[in-house]
Amino acid sequence: MSAISIHPIEGIGEVKPGDTLADLLIDRFDFHPLDVVVVTQKIVSKAEGRLVTVGEDPGEHEALVESESVRIIRRRGELLISETSHGFICANAGIDYSNVERGQAALLPLDPDRSARRIRDGLVARTGYEVAVIVSDTFGRAWRKGLTDIAIGCAGISAIVDLKGTSDHMGRELQVTEICIADELAGAAELVMGKARSVPAAVVRGIEPEWFRESSVRAEIVRPPQEDLFR
Amino acid sequence: MSAISIHPIEGIGEVKPGDTLADLLIDRFDFHPLDVVVVTQKIVSKAEGRLVTVGEDPGEHEALVESESVRIIRRRGELLISETSHGFICANAGIDYSNVERGQAALLPLDPDRSARRIRDGLVARTGYEVAVIVSDTFGRAWRKGLTDIAIGCAGISAIVDLKGTSDHMGRELQVTEICIADELAGAAELVMGKARSVPAAVVRGIEPEWFRESSVRAEIVRPPQEDLFR
Repeated sequence: MSAISIHPIEGIGEVKPGDTLADLLIDRFDFHPLDVVVVTQKIVSKAEGRLVTVGEDPGEHEALVESESVRIIRRRGELLISETSHGFICANAGIDYSNVERGQAALLPLDPDRSARRIRDGLVARTGYEVAVIVSDTFGRAWRKGLTDIAIGCAGISAIVDLKGTSDHMGRELQVTEICIADELAGAAELVMGKARSVPAAVVRGIEPEWFRESSVRAEIVRPPQEDLFR
Repeated sequence: MSAISIHPIEGIGEVKPGDTLADLLIDRFDFHPLDVVVVTQKIVSKAEGRLVTVGEDPGEHEALVESESVRIIRRRGELLISETSHGFICANAGIDYSNVERGQAALLPLDPDRSARRIRDGLVARTGYEVAVIVSDTFGRAWRKGLTDIAIGCAGISAIVDLKGTSDHMGRELQVTEICIADELAGAAELVMGKARSVPAAVVRGIEPEWFRESSVRAEIVRPPQEDLFR
């Protein structure tokens, strides 16, 4: 198997409501067939105008988190872990104050799978290539410190690759083998996004061609509450 | 910033107790300075002789999980989520039946940070290069379906990069910015490991030179129970 490479897309600059991300990406990067573009939530939210004005008062922040949540899962001091309308469990309902204008906050895209699909449609239309898109965000985890970038939306790429029934090299069926490649791709892309995170998109090149298909984070990755042991 | 590349290390074949992994890796790959080698738990456990005989009876499996755990966290049917002696929360205490001989099971390394350090010492001694090592394993997560590869041990590379105080490109301090690059590197490496997972090691090349330093998964990533909201 050959190598995979990860390429930052630099020079995107400030994204404004109404911008067409597919155009911004194509103008700055020479796409190949079967590229996977990982785009951070921040520029997706900005392009979609998901910005709100919020004051400095902690009560205002808390009210905003609650309005963006369907359920508060845990609360410790100012930290709120909640479930968003998308079914994501994360801190502060994914609301982000960095790299936005002071006094503003960026909310999560309303439907990140649809956001990914829209970007993908634009890329496919302009390049004529089969490419895939992942919208990523930076989330914490239970049990482990530190944050990682994960997929909140995807289009054109398997969210999860099911290796059930693929035999291991000793000829037996593998046991539990549903690999969430969308999250691994999002985390891999984060590695080139730079220390001050001024690079908001990256391309992963060289992944298995058979992983390209229609898919959705919401349908494939979000674990329904009734199957979940930890909320 | 330039690209990152991920290279599978192929042809390692069957690893046996007593094998020196650093030698097996060097014989099959042309290392460069500042390479990060990700080695899967499976071959580390085999090289370290962490294999036990276990019968087909589910009771035997359950007793083994319990003996490898300090605490059972959740139980649903045959699925046991437990805390291992290392502080990892995972299914079946990380015990693995795939790619081992029938009737055997591979246990987690006793001290995966030490395993990583031993491999790194061997690589540094033979190449003279600064390189880093991550021992990876495939774990599930709360709230999200699918498994991802994460770091269970590391040597020579930051487990977590603290971007606190690094200002964003609008000049303000970033908020929560402790990125667990060890887990992102482990997940990235998984992407080249192949469908039947017959590639047990990969090299990530091109990451930030300042991320190389002494570190430990246990000290930096494992969240102490008293800080944890989800067990």
